[in-house]
Amino acid sequence: MATVPLLTDEAADPAARAVFDDIRAKRQTDYVNNFWRALAHDPPLLAATWDRLQQVMAPGALDPLVKELIYVAVSVTNGCEYCTHSHTAAARAKGMTPAMHAELLAVIAMAAQTNALATALQVPTDERFQT
Amino acid sequence: MATVPLLTDEAADPAARAVFDDIRAKRQTDYVNNFWRALAHDPPLLAATWDRLQQVMAPGALDPLVKELIYVAVSVTNGCEYCTHSHTAAARAKGMTPAMHAELLAVIAMAAQTNALATALQVPTDERFQT
Amino acid sequence: MATVPLLTDEAADPAARAVFDDIRAKRQTDYVNNFWRALAHDPPLLAATWDRLQQVMAPGALDPLVKELIYVAVSVTNGCEYCTHSHTAAARAKGMTPAMHAELLAVIAMAAQTNALATALQVPTDERFQT
Amino acid sequence: MATVPLLTDEAADPAARAVFDDIRAKRQTDYVNNFWRALAHDPPLLAATWDRLQQVMAPGALDPLVKELIYVAVSVTNGCEYCTHSHTAAARAKGMTPAMHAELLAVIAMAAQTNALATALQVPTDERFQT
Amino acid sequence: MATVPLLTDEAADPAARAVFDDIRAKRQTDYVNNFWRALAHDPPLLAATWDRLQQVMAPGALDPLVKELIYVAVSVTNGCEYCTHSHTAAARAKGMTPAMHAELLAVIAMAAQTNALATALQVPTDERFQT
Amino acid sequence: MATVPLLTDEAADPAARAVFDDIRAKRQTDYVNNFWRALAHDPPLLAATWDRLQQVMAPGALDPLVKELIYVAVSVTNGCEYCTHSHTAAARAKGMTPAMHAELLAVIAMAAQTNALATALQVPTDERFQT
Repeated sequence: MATVPLLTDEAADPAARAVFDDIRAKRQTDYVNNFWRALAHDPPLLAATWDRLQQVMAPGALDPLVKELIYVAVSVTNGCEYCTHSHTAAARAKGMTPAMHAELLAVIAMAAQTNALATALQVPTDERFQT
Repeated sequence: MATVPLLTDEAADPAARAVFDDIRAKRQTDYVNNFWRALAHDPPLLAATWDRLQQVMAPGALDPLVKELIYVAVSVTNGCEYCTHSHTAAARAKGMTPAMHAELLAVIAMAAQTNALATALQVPTDERFQT
Repeated sequence: MATVPLLTDEAADPAARAVFDDIRAKRQTDYVNNFWRALAHDPPLLAATWDRLQQVMAPGALDPLVKELIYVAVSVTNGCEYCTHSHTAAARAKGMTPAMHAELLAVIAMAAQTNALATALQVPTDERFQT
Repeated sequence: MATVPLLTDEAADPAARAVFDDIRAKRQTDYVNNFWRALAHDPPLLAATWDRLQQVMAPGALDPLVKELIYVAVSVTNGCEYCTHSHTAAARAKGMTPAMHAELLAVIAMAAQTNALATALQVPTDERFQT
Repeated sequence: MATVPLLTDEAADPAARAVFDDIRAKRQTDYVNNFWRALAHDPPLLAATWDRLQQVMAPGALDPLVKELIYVAVSVTNGCEYCTHSHTAAARAKGMTPAMHAELLAVIAMAAQTNALATALQVPTDERFQT
Repeated sequence: MATVPLLTDEAADPAARAVFDDIRAKRQTDYVNNFWRALAHDPPLLAATWDRLQQVMAPGALDPLVKELIYVAVSVTNGCEYCTHSHTAAARAKGMTPAMHAELLAVIAMAAQTNALATALQVPTDERFQT
């Protein structure tokens, strides 16, 4: 259950429905996932989030699959169940193979481990890491 | 300050010094950074961590720079100051350009934001994300 | 499922039942929510938590609704599913409107985003923020 | 030290300088704090963050001080040193008294404590919290 | 649901099945829990994790039950639902009594609370804590 | 720097000074560490925290050193710099040897790693972990 009802197209106000339509058009699907239906209670936040997501995830100096892997890494580290599922699925849709998934998980686990050690040891930052 | 003294080559025991030597040889540098000097109080943990790091970060289905970007993303999300510095430096050494750094940060920030929203809304996972 | 059984009034020991009764009396309800029934395995911890909660959440320099909004913000950021649900419900019971809920979420998301950026950039604290 | 140099007005590109000017104008100060000078390496991210911050923190259903208290609560929970300092200072500037600060801290601490307990106990969400 | 299918003995490759067999032999049970069945998609990661876990959790300067309590504390603090359940069960299997469980929870909650306060106050580390 | 000035005995109000005196008496030291001097701005919170800490950390089903190790584990996982330092020092004062410290760190790192994997894989909880 969500802390707000998920809004159907009928229940959403026109501004939210316009975002739903844009999601369907841009993603070439008739499916709008639950995140957007929950956010639709606040149409300006919905629109701002969708607009920003498209800008951030567009091809650039990093390709979209690499961005999606980074998104999964953050979502896992934040312990976000929904985001871990949705961005793992998105990464697969963008070409993540099982071998890439396995390596992604190994890096996340390695980082979690050395992050904990560095924090436990309170290691001071080396001068040479300074820019 | 660290919670343990950083060990110089002289103060480290032979097993730890062997890891220091291996780090210098593999990285083609005479510098051993503070993380390893702090870990050196537990030579088996030092050796296990260094060995595993090399396996995990080696080229594979993902290239080493992509792995380093993922490492930064996890370190930032865990709030690890040392790791954020050391892996940002490592990513630069492996070819991260300012444009790639900027996009990395934008993705991390976007994920942090939608993670928070999905958690606040307790959005249920869509059936179609299931494998 | 919980890691301990939830205790009914019958199963709880007298010290825990006294807290249940106080919860019902103070909240003017006959319902004791699951958190307290799980905590009841440790009656002193149950009593200490309930006592402290009342002191902390009482009207003071901040009004109870504002305190509840802060409670939701912490719970979301900690990724606590139960607490996100229970304190969102409590905030509504204390007068949080849908517009207030939407703004609460927007602030939480904004903070999550700039927290991540400040950490990724390791921005040094400005002198003028010092007291 | 930051992971990027903080940019002075002279070093920043015109798009970033325009944001600095807007910050000075809107805040009626000649001071631009370090966060913005670090973000200035990515002028579009700088502009997007500044624009969004103004929208989110503007008076609405919640007043700006309440929003700032929520911002502090998220920043503390995320362990963001910079943000804890900057938003505590911002809250003071918007009228947070010592008594309000004390109550803010007491609520954050209480929530941290019950979040941990609810997670340790894996308390199932009560039906009645559902919307 | 998991982000990957849980592998049965039949579906797992021989390297993964060998780890399953070792788990059954070492734990003297015919049950292999879901964590290992999910990890089995990456046999080297499965083997490395299982090997390391045995080394780390073996009797040493700390006894296995104390190690398990520490494991629970980390898992709760990271908000890991699976790990909180599995390591609470493991701690019970190693002799954690209800009284020990109650004290474990009280310490976790106390630490969560003072961690939040120390971070909110940004308390500088005392000189005398330095080694 | 802290977000509030650290209060000397002279600057603290009588209720806070009474807590300082009790800390000195119970710990048989003339030193009051920074955490308490920062908390002293809110004497009731100071007193409540000190009282609760004594109850929670007293010998019981778990001995005080084990409790201190758990405290360190939580503090590290929460990324609390101050608490990592102060509780590592406290654990040493209560008898933590270098070997115990090394094992504590190894367990924390192992848990951080498997927590990340379980979250990334979204492993469903086994029925048999249910109580």
